[in-house]
Amino acid sequence: MISIKNLLNSYDLTKDDLLEIIELGNAIYKSPDDFSHCADGKILGTLFFEPSTRTRLSFESAMLRLGGSVVGFSDSNVSSSTKGESLADTVRTVSQYADIIAMRHPQEGAAYLASKTADCPIINAGDGGHQHPTQTLTDILTITNYKKDLSGHVIGLCGDLKYGRTVHSLLKVMSMFPNNKFILISPDELKLPEYVKKEVFSDGTNNYEEVRSLDDVIDQLDILYMTRIQKERFFSQAQYTRLKDSYLLDKDKLKHAKKDCIVLHPLPRVTEIATEVDIDPRAVYFKQVKFGMYVRMALILKLLEANNDRNN
Amino acid sequence: MISIKNLLNSYDLTKDDLLEIIELGNAIYKSPDDFSHCADGKILGTLFFEPSTRTRLSFESAMLRLGGSVVGFSDSNVSSSTKGESLADTVRTVSQYADIIAMRHPQEGAAYLASKTADCPIINAGDGGHQHPTQTLTDILTITNYKKDLSGHVIGLCGDLKYGRTVHSLLKVMSMFPNNKFILISPDELKLPEYVKKEVFSDGTNNYEEVRSLDDVIDQLDILYMTRIQKERFFSQAQYTRLKDSYLLDKDKLKHAKKDCIVLHPLPRVTEIATEVDIDPRAVYFKQVKFGMYVRMALILKLLEANNDRNN
Amino acid sequence: MISIKNLLNSYDLTKDDLLEIIELGNAIYKSPDDFSHCADGKILGTLFFEPSTRTRLSFESAMLRLGGSVVGFSDSNVSSSTKGESLADTVRTVSQYADIIAMRHPQEGAAYLASKTADCPIINAGDGGHQHPTQTLTDILTITNYKKDLSGHVIGLCGDLKYGRTVHSLLKVMSMFPNNKFILISPDELKLPEYVKKEVFSDGTNNYEEVRSLDDVIDQLDILYMTRIQKERFFSQAQYTRLKDSYLLDKDKLKHAKKDCIVLHPLPRVTEIATEVDIDPRAVYFKQVKFGMYVRMALILKLLEANNDRNN
Repeated sequence: MISIKNLLNSYDLTKDDLLEIIELGNAIYKSPDDFSHCADGKILGTLFFEPSTRTRLSFESAMLRLGGSVVGFSDSNVSSSTKGESLADTVRTVSQYADIIAMRHPQEGAAYLASKTADCPIINAGDGGHQHPTQTLTDILTITNYKKDLSGHVIGLCGDLKYGRTVHSLLKVMSMFPNNKFILISPDELKLPEYVKKEVFSDGTNNYEEVRSLDDVIDQLDILYMTRIQKERFFSQAQYTRLKDSYLLDKDKLKHAKKDCIVLHPLPRVTEIATEVDIDPRAVYFKQVKFGMYVRMALILKLLEANNDRNN
Repeated sequence: MISIKNLLNSYDLTKDDLLEIIELGNAIYKSPDDFSHCADGKILGTLFFEPSTRTRLSFESAMLRLGGSVVGFSDSNVSSSTKGESLADTVRTVSQYADIIAMRHPQEGAAYLASKTADCPIINAGDGGHQHPTQTLTDILTITNYKKDLSGHVIGLCGDLKYGRTVHSLLKVMSMFPNNKFILISPDELKLPEYVKKEVFSDGTNNYEEVRSLDDVIDQLDILYMTRIQKERFFSQAQYTRLKDSYLLDKDKLKHAKKDCIVLHPLPRVTEIATEVDIDPRAVYFKQVKFGMYVRMALILKLLEANNDRNN
Repeated sequence: MISIKNLLNSYDLTKDDLLEIIELGNAIYKSPDDFSHCADGKILGTLFFEPSTRTRLSFESAMLRLGGSVVGFSDSNVSSSTKGESLADTVRTVSQYADIIAMRHPQEGAAYLASKTADCPIINAGDGGHQHPTQTLTDILTITNYKKDLSGHVIGLCGDLKYGRTVHSLLKVMSMFPNNKFILISPDELKLPEYVKKEVFSDGTNNYEEVRSLDDVIDQLDILYMTRIQKERFFSQAQYTRLKDSYLLDKDKLKHAKKDCIVLHPLPRVTEIATEVDIDPRAVYFKQVKFGMYVRMALILKLLEANNDRNN
């Protein structure tokens, strides 16, 4: 049984928790029909105070493929907030109807706050720029399916490493596993923050290198993790236009990559991966979407199990 | 079998109907798993022409926990109204897909109008300021769970007694049961209207008293029903600010209440109950939310049964 | 097994495909309970980039009545499009979660584009003014239920024959069946376009006649297909006001129709059929709504079957 009652932050997961969820995710991936009644009669509440179709549908499909069902909202306009109700009350109310809740909210700490009063487990499906732990679980499950284990790889992380929360969270979790080398590929303006480097690399079990050019290093990589460079991170349109294509992956660049290199991306992508790359077998970002659903199935089952003794 | 084919107005329920629904609600509350396939294959349509997350999710969870499923919309923007279709046509169309419909609409009488042409039972989930009968069923099921029966209690109703439709409806239904004493606690500006008093108290089976101060009477109460004072009821911000805290329940006030007094609230609350009260065992308003789901399960089953002979 | 992997355009259906779907639709209509587990464990994605409650709920009810479940969105505000993702990526992502997708999009060709990258079958639930093939299937299933076969009828098509895509599509499909006579009833400004006439009538197996007055021909009709005259088709309010009532069907006009004439309408209606007509047994447009659900059940099953061999 996993050690947590909610999943609020990927950093709350112990290595054992992580491996237990990944192992179950793999079992589900291999034989999904064996799990199609594991959550019969259970209800997932999806409380999306800001829209995120991709994440919401992944959670909902996960619950439905376990035999459960779903209630919720996809937009704060549709919530009760107009009547002045607090977030804590809204979530506590829904926790009377639902057996488990996945929530996204624009404010940092919202999921934590919700977990204090809710009468069921809470999964953080994104709060502000802060945390989105099921994306990291998705990335890890994807990697284990192509690379067997989580050690000894050369991993390129490319794009916006300053603000990209998925990168920080993936680095933090991967640093539990030794002997990986991280190549951090970004413009100077979007380098990985010092505080993340300290957290991740100070124990010396993993190395890193910082470069500006994807071309220079692509032939060394076992894993290439691409990220979106969000328009809203830039001070000016000019700066955005200058940088947005610098870290674009196309067919020509990918020619130089290893035959068994895998390309991941948390999606949605904008221009950072040319669509001509999609048919390359090394491009696994749409398969990653499917692993995202399987890992959420695993997480839901693990949290329902860990909360069996909770007093409803 | 209950005497009605739709639930449009709490006043349409006979005492026998009410007791039959409450009895089934209690049975479901005690053993929900026994009912988890009672609506297998049935579809609930949730037509919310104005948003109300709380009520919508309660109905949807109720149907899902009976084994049924749900279609619908949560917002009039999402409905067909933009093409100029009438409400009657929209509801009649959905009644071709659904086996039962719960609808909320901003106009008084909308549910009645819908019931004239629909080919399935209609539950009024709120029409204008008019009626919201399943809230009253929720209140009654909650009371019977803590107080065994519905007679012989001292019941305080506190807050906006002028506009609060849940209070009027609860009073009307409770007046079917003798020997209750109602203490009406409100500012002069928000006193219970004369026409409601006439309807409820003229037969003399129940008494009432009107007071301005919650503090003066809280020690006498078996049941305290708190209500929200809605901003939109006031002529000015100043009047709202002056009154909104007058009827606030906090830990200090609750010290003087009986040990077995129960505090109800239809929710959402704003400031009228301090959150410090939530952990007091007498605060049952979140359990009330759960009873709301159980009583809607009972209602759905009773209406499906009463409509079995309807020609689809 | 039907010959298509997606339903993008009603013209893609061969006569055999059409008859196979209609035959299954009829079997479902006669005995829906026999099909209530045929899609157990399957997920329908409903991607409505523009709202259409009627069509969306018809697809969702169809899937639920087959034992399947549904994920999706009902409004482009709720989709990921704000982050700049392409339509192709959004649909490909959802096709990782769903087993079949019904989509509506304001742009012509959107469903075709989506089908190129999706990993599951796509049903076009409307793209621009272009195509909405399941409406035509609905019309055909309705006709076969009242008229036994699809040949030898006098069929009046009344209203906006210039822009009404349901009329063009119905004509095209009905022209597969010989010996029907079509009476095209419209104002000069909204006559059937020449290119449609050429496509439909050039092989001589069916005849047509163009008239301006519904009154003059109503006594000859076996089937009367009414259509909505959309405000947005007119250059001026004056023109709209002059024409909108010209082709209104009321009790007086219907007096002159045959006893076994049936009146269809794709709905929603505005003023073109008076509500007093609704209770006439010849008015079958609300039953048509129910046939729409049954034919979508048939289509979903046929496409799931035809895609069984697809590599997910």
